[in-house]
Amino acid sequence: MIPRYSRPEMTAIWSPETRFRIWYEIEAHACDAQADLGVIPRENAEAVWKARDVEFDVARIDEIEAVTKHDVIAFLTHLAEHIGNDEARFVHQGMTSSDVLDTALNVQLVRAADILLADMDKVLDALKRRAFEHKDTVRIGRSHGIHAEPTTMGLTFARFYAEMQRGKRRLELARDEVATGAISGAVGTFANIDPAVEAHVCAQMGLRPEPISTQIIPRDRHAMFFATLGVIASSIENIAIEIRHMQRTEVLEAEEFFSPGQKGSSAMPHKRNPVLTENLTGLARLVRMAVIPAMENVALWHERDISHSSVERGIAPDATITLDFALNRLAGVVDKLVIYPENMLRNMNKFKGLVMSQRVLLALTQAGVSREDAYRLVQRNAMKVWEEGKDFKTELLSDAEVTAALSPAEIEEKFDLGYHTKHVDTIFDRVFGQAR
Amino acid sequence: MIPRYSRPEMTAIWSPETRFRIWYEIEAHACDAQADLGVIPRENAEAVWKARDVEFDVARIDEIEAVTKHDVIAFLTHLAEHIGNDEARFVHQGMTSSDVLDTALNVQLVRAADILLADMDKVLDALKRRAFEHKDTVRIGRSHGIHAEPTTMGLTFARFYAEMQRGKRRLELARDEVATGAISGAVGTFANIDPAVEAHVCAQMGLRPEPISTQIIPRDRHAMFFATLGVIASSIENIAIEIRHMQRTEVLEAEEFFSPGQKGSSAMPHKRNPVLTENLTGLARLVRMAVIPAMENVALWHERDISHSSVERGIAPDATITLDFALNRLAGVVDKLVIYPENMLRNMNKFKGLVMSQRVLLALTQAGVSREDAYRLVQRNAMKVWEEGKDFKTELLSDAEVTAALSPAEIEEKFDLGYHTKHVDTIFDRVFGQAR
Amino acid sequence: MIPRYSRPEMTAIWSPETRFRIWYEIEAHACDAQADLGVIPRENAEAVWKARDVEFDVARIDEIEAVTKHDVIAFLTHLAEHIGNDEARFVHQGMTSSDVLDTALNVQLVRAADILLADMDKVLDALKRRAFEHKDTVRIGRSHGIHAEPTTMGLTFARFYAEMQRGKRRLELARDEVATGAISGAVGTFANIDPAVEAHVCAQMGLRPEPISTQIIPRDRHAMFFATLGVIASSIENIAIEIRHMQRTEVLEAEEFFSPGQKGSSAMPHKRNPVLTENLTGLARLVRMAVIPAMENVALWHERDISHSSVERGIAPDATITLDFALNRLAGVVDKLVIYPENMLRNMNKFKGLVMSQRVLLALTQAGVSREDAYRLVQRNAMKVWEEGKDFKTELLSDAEVTAALSPAEIEEKFDLGYHTKHVDTIFDRVFGQAR
Amino acid sequence: MIPRYSRPEMTAIWSPETRFRIWYEIEAHACDAQADLGVIPRENAEAVWKARDVEFDVARIDEIEAVTKHDVIAFLTHLAEHIGNDEARFVHQGMTSSDVLDTALNVQLVRAADILLADMDKVLDALKRRAFEHKDTVRIGRSHGIHAEPTTMGLTFARFYAEMQRGKRRLELARDEVATGAISGAVGTFANIDPAVEAHVCAQMGLRPEPISTQIIPRDRHAMFFATLGVIASSIENIAIEIRHMQRTEVLEAEEFFSPGQKGSSAMPHKRNPVLTENLTGLARLVRMAVIPAMENVALWHERDISHSSVERGIAPDATITLDFALNRLAGVVDKLVIYPENMLRNMNKFKGLVMSQRVLLALTQAGVSREDAYRLVQRNAMKVWEEGKDFKTELLSDAEVTAALSPAEIEEKFDLGYHTKHVDTIFDRVFGQAR
Repeated sequence: MIPRYSRPEMTAIWSPETRFRIWYEIEAHACDAQADLGVIPRENAEAVWKARDVEFDVARIDEIEAVTKHDVIAFLTHLAEHIGNDEARFVHQGMTSSDVLDTALNVQLVRAADILLADMDKVLDALKRRAFEHKDTVRIGRSHGIHAEPTTMGLTFARFYAEMQRGKRRLELARDEVATGAISGAVGTFANIDPAVEAHVCAQMGLRPEPISTQIIPRDRHAMFFATLGVIASSIENIAIEIRHMQRTEVLEAEEFFSPGQKGSSAMPHKRNPVLTENLTGLARLVRMAVIPAMENVALWHERDISHSSVERGIAPDATITLDFALNRLAGVVDKLVIYPENMLRNMNKFKGLVMSQRVLLALTQAGVSREDAYRLVQRNAMKVWEEGKDFKTELLSDAEVTAALSPAEIEEKFDLGYHTKHVDTIFDRVFGQAR
Repeated sequence: MIPRYSRPEMTAIWSPETRFRIWYEIEAHACDAQADLGVIPRENAEAVWKARDVEFDVARIDEIEAVTKHDVIAFLTHLAEHIGNDEARFVHQGMTSSDVLDTALNVQLVRAADILLADMDKVLDALKRRAFEHKDTVRIGRSHGIHAEPTTMGLTFARFYAEMQRGKRRLELARDEVATGAISGAVGTFANIDPAVEAHVCAQMGLRPEPISTQIIPRDRHAMFFATLGVIASSIENIAIEIRHMQRTEVLEAEEFFSPGQKGSSAMPHKRNPVLTENLTGLARLVRMAVIPAMENVALWHERDISHSSVERGIAPDATITLDFALNRLAGVVDKLVIYPENMLRNMNKFKGLVMSQRVLLALTQAGVSREDAYRLVQRNAMKVWEEGKDFKTELLSDAEVTAALSPAEIEEKFDLGYHTKHVDTIFDRVFGQAR
Repeated sequence: MIPRYSRPEMTAIWSPETRFRIWYEIEAHACDAQADLGVIPRENAEAVWKARDVEFDVARIDEIEAVTKHDVIAFLTHLAEHIGNDEARFVHQGMTSSDVLDTALNVQLVRAADILLADMDKVLDALKRRAFEHKDTVRIGRSHGIHAEPTTMGLTFARFYAEMQRGKRRLELARDEVATGAISGAVGTFANIDPAVEAHVCAQMGLRPEPISTQIIPRDRHAMFFATLGVIASSIENIAIEIRHMQRTEVLEAEEFFSPGQKGSSAMPHKRNPVLTENLTGLARLVRMAVIPAMENVALWHERDISHSSVERGIAPDATITLDFALNRLAGVVDKLVIYPENMLRNMNKFKGLVMSQRVLLALTQAGVSREDAYRLVQRNAMKVWEEGKDFKTELLSDAEVTAALSPAEIEEKFDLGYHTKHVDTIFDRVFGQAR
Repeated sequence: MIPRYSRPEMTAIWSPETRFRIWYEIEAHACDAQADLGVIPRENAEAVWKARDVEFDVARIDEIEAVTKHDVIAFLTHLAEHIGNDEARFVHQGMTSSDVLDTALNVQLVRAADILLADMDKVLDALKRRAFEHKDTVRIGRSHGIHAEPTTMGLTFARFYAEMQRGKRRLELARDEVATGAISGAVGTFANIDPAVEAHVCAQMGLRPEPISTQIIPRDRHAMFFATLGVIASSIENIAIEIRHMQRTEVLEAEEFFSPGQKGSSAMPHKRNPVLTENLTGLARLVRMAVIPAMENVALWHERDISHSSVERGIAPDATITLDFALNRLAGVVDKLVIYPENMLRNMNKFKGLVMSQRVLLALTQAGVSREDAYRLVQRNAMKVWEEGKDFKTELLSDAEVTAALSPAEIEEKFDLGYHTKHVDTIFDRVFGQAR
């Protein structure tokens, strides 16, 4: 976790305080279920809830762990300090540490996913708003970084919206993957605890019982979860790269928001760096690096080995905190992105109509000119544009061989931007379910 | 693609012949739609279908490509050789190469997914059959590679079944991710082609129209697809590692099937190597290596850059072919795995009842013995087992302090394996929807 | 291996023919050593060399392997078909298959490294030539994609040269990592074969004896090898990205070579795509994906498990063939890159001297103007440039408050490009050991 | 950084205090050099050293950064608070933030490497000591997890020693990769600062001048650094996996040290888990995950983009801290590993001499028995061992057909362990330069 790339709400999920709180709730609910089953006395189950409002003392638990070398035992010892040794005596009965640890981890991941889903809504809101705002803002579409045909800035936002929407759906599925709990004992056989306890605890903690666990919840679930985060991070990178390109000095079709008072901006107005989206590019790499270790965690020995644990202590907080930060940063960047429509037009016209050369070529052949001749006609006018900076349409209009095949109106039509934007509404309707 | 790790059915999907066949179908269906729209003459559209039964000549197309330096143009040129230059003149009209390439890639990925889904069914069938066969075959459960509590071989198969079932569900979703096509032109605006063409082609090719594309179909879809393959591969590794452990000389609870005539097996019966599951372990790494490049492919420049293309030429065939091979190999390994129940019992009893020490400890405290005394009692008998090879139950039964707290019947009960297997039916019911 | 991204020389290293040839040489040299030791008859050792000029029949060996299920045995059987069963009877004596397989793999990797080193020399030659050619070609340096200060195109080439030079040194070390062989038997103890055989075979095959092997050569060596290829691939990507940026329509400071006759280039002169460097970007991802699997291959069970083998069947040819192709493509791209110095100047002047604002700011403060005033003076002139398209220097020269502090000559001097290039020779001397 | 997997010495390198301290030294040395050049007044350079013993106030610097949004400026502002605004006025003159940041990062990486090198010495010492201690402790060598031929525990330690030795050599080279500094200005041209400043600062900070930098030091260096850490981590995993296998209940040839008083150990002596080596397995994955992002960091835009920065804020501390912890943990595990030679013998004899069947087979053929007959003889005796638990040697000695070919002494000789250990001294000499 890198403090500067973290937000309190997500970080809190991974604090020791939260972890102990979740452990506590799991243990308390388990006691209730055990009391329902008649396995432990009702009063002992009830006594556990005395600690309902306790904030557990992390330093004290660490102190105990330093002796016991076991985190769950340290916590239980500390819990007993609150509710009384005698009252606490049935806490954790029949359970194994992993019952608590794995169920708690999944509670954390589900909560993290909920925050991330809300984050994605912010991004989606911003993208949608900007998409409609710039639905008709024409800019040149580029393939290979080279001008191709006109498109609109709204379509750019709309495709990012569609991509993020897919990301959100994936995240909902990923949340579902890890929304299971297990209270099934040392090797998953429920030898020492009734499945009813698992059912009760899971219901209380917002999870489904894991249909079949070993000592632990199977790690293919977590692998899928982190893989999904990696894909979402890659989509963030996709948007970030677009903005970075738009802010290049030579392109300057957009800039990250720059507060007017920001030092240096006005004495060096050319030097506004897209540092937020560059940062997002790096953060995407950080999130993605959780993917392979999470997959390497799947193949554990027999009913469990503990190699996955240290990995998860790293990647679970790091990947969720970083992605949460990145999504929020992205929402802000999109929301406040400064768009320069006039520069978009200027760029599009850099080669004075040359981007329309393909349409002209096609029109000439459709008008009956042979492919070779059409090519030659376009070429000789294109070269005047390319080498002498002439205007393509003007040249065509004054080329007798061209006008013999195409009327001035037909030539004009080839340069009509409306030709390129005529299906924007259709596409918006497909993406947003509405065209305006 | 490594020949020895490939199967013909999957490999065929990635052959040039199949690719050209799919291109052909896309172009032909597009012509039909264009004719429906009145954009091109009906007879030209119909003429394209003359090549319906043609096997395209890959060598000839390569020859043309060597000149044109463009694969789609080379194909179209060759197509015209079959249906006539004049008849072919409207083929591909208004389309861009990527319309064909990307739609075709997704057709291939969908077909690959269908094979993989069928593969997973084979694995699931084998796992289910073996699970029920060994539902009650008791073996020791292990955490950290160390004996913990008894479980059954059936539960092991059942958990792999549940994991593969999840994998199959994920693959269905991944298939859905890439089941889109796009015929939207150079920058995705449908400037030169009506969306109805896309709709028709997609319907014919078993795809959905991509709601918003640029020159290409967005690559977050493919990233998710390959990430999913990586998770499934990791689950294969998980099963493989279990079997490799079971076949270790010292464990020998199972062996990969070894045909009786196989050279060396009977003169060196101790030297049967789990080479198939070792191989699966390696293949899992190979499949997984597609994941990160697929994610790096997401962030393309503007409406497309072509950096993803070479990556996909590698990973698309390689990952699907390898995973297909691995799933089939796995199905065979599971199906024919030789299980040694008697060795399972022998292993479980290696430390003569010591795995029950925790149950005894618990029983003593529940019988009113103080925690310290209970520990001391268990310890002194455990040590006799550990150091002198005595039998734990026998020692307990002859320890007066123990028998003062627990009756012989109570002690016997602690060694009852039924205690550990009593919920196997419950778990099977959760996994398979049936307990027998 | 993707045929279109492969070159014959490197591909040949990984052909079955080459592999069998290397196996043959290892076996033959081993026989010589065994004969020297008196372990096998001299005439049998000599007989093996009868096959010196044989091209082994891959189909025949495959046929035998289909029966024996063992590649080395199949080869030896086929070898005996050439030199006679009786003469061949001592071939491979005391050896284990891995002795042959691992030593052969390293011979292949060393040869691959030698080709790659030669490839790098081509890249280095091209970079050096272009660096000196454009030593003084001024262009704007950019940080964050935003204009910063002037630099020269020669410096760009020079830094890529320095980076590739480092890559070459790394590759020499990586070659050294895998330049070992082992003929040490089933678990590396030389129980059945004298270390002298290993010494002789290695000397003949251009390898060092592995100081301590198990059944196999330790895989940390190969991990380091593939990691190094990954770094070199990343450097290729670095150069590729630079060129792709330079070729962007709005930048157009360079273009990949485009043969004059190439279709489409002159009718659409604006649409020349940097497809080679985009391809290199993708190829870099493909090479890099070998790195993690190679590292996962290091931790094998005890004296060997065979999980690494399938991985290496994939990554060894794929990574070396792809990198070889990429380096050659890169050498060509650099060699023929079309540079547009006039566009470089035009881009640099896009904001009419504004990139010099920082120098002016500094000069004003050094001339005694307070930091606040200096800032205000620069700002008001900068804004005229930014918003009204004025020329920065002209504005400064006509701003009385500025000229009160700085003489016209001093102002002029701030716009002198020589200020920025004065240490180019120094840097060239550091990189190339010569400034001209 | 995961607190429980970190050591203070390494963590300190990455503290803000250390970072600011290094920045300070770089700035102060730069002032000295500037004074030497006559660029700034000597007294101002000397004044900077007034802060020589200052511990910079991190909270204060953060406070300033919250306003300036720039870390280096915040630091310089705070520095001025210590040495006086007027005295501080020439600090950082002609430099760019990255000059400080990148040089400082490399100072940190070099110091981290130095700690890691010392760590590796601890591991090497432990491995060497244990290797000689168990040079002659015979155990069965295993391929595929299956018994192969005898080896010794000393050879196992020796091969890990050799592997770690290679790792250390690689780390020395990796250290060398990043031991450069750069004080070359905004785009690396030394426009505003003389190369002599860089030379002086680097010499003082223990670095070499980077021959050619842009705004930053090229990231292929860092990619190589982190790739090397990944290889070393993989070697740690290799040792960890070996120990985990040795500690398996069924194998029990070694155990991680377990302090006698450790709770649970004596009441459940069978349940000692190899948690340290399992942990090392996970930590290896964590270190390795830095490799790909570090490679993705190489291709930056033009003279720099800042996408690498966030990645390095994560991986630089995390990978070095985790590897440092892992190496120390490994040294302790190796040093105190409890070895059970008697269990090694017991395991080796599990199949009563059957591991010698290959030697017997060979001996029979060498004694003139036909291959088929030899195979049949070995097989029929092997089967008695495998199926009836007989002793292989005893059976052979009582098989008349066998004794017709081999004398009892010859048969005995085939079971002589000395046959397998005769070259241990040779190998030790190759690894350690000494056999005893």
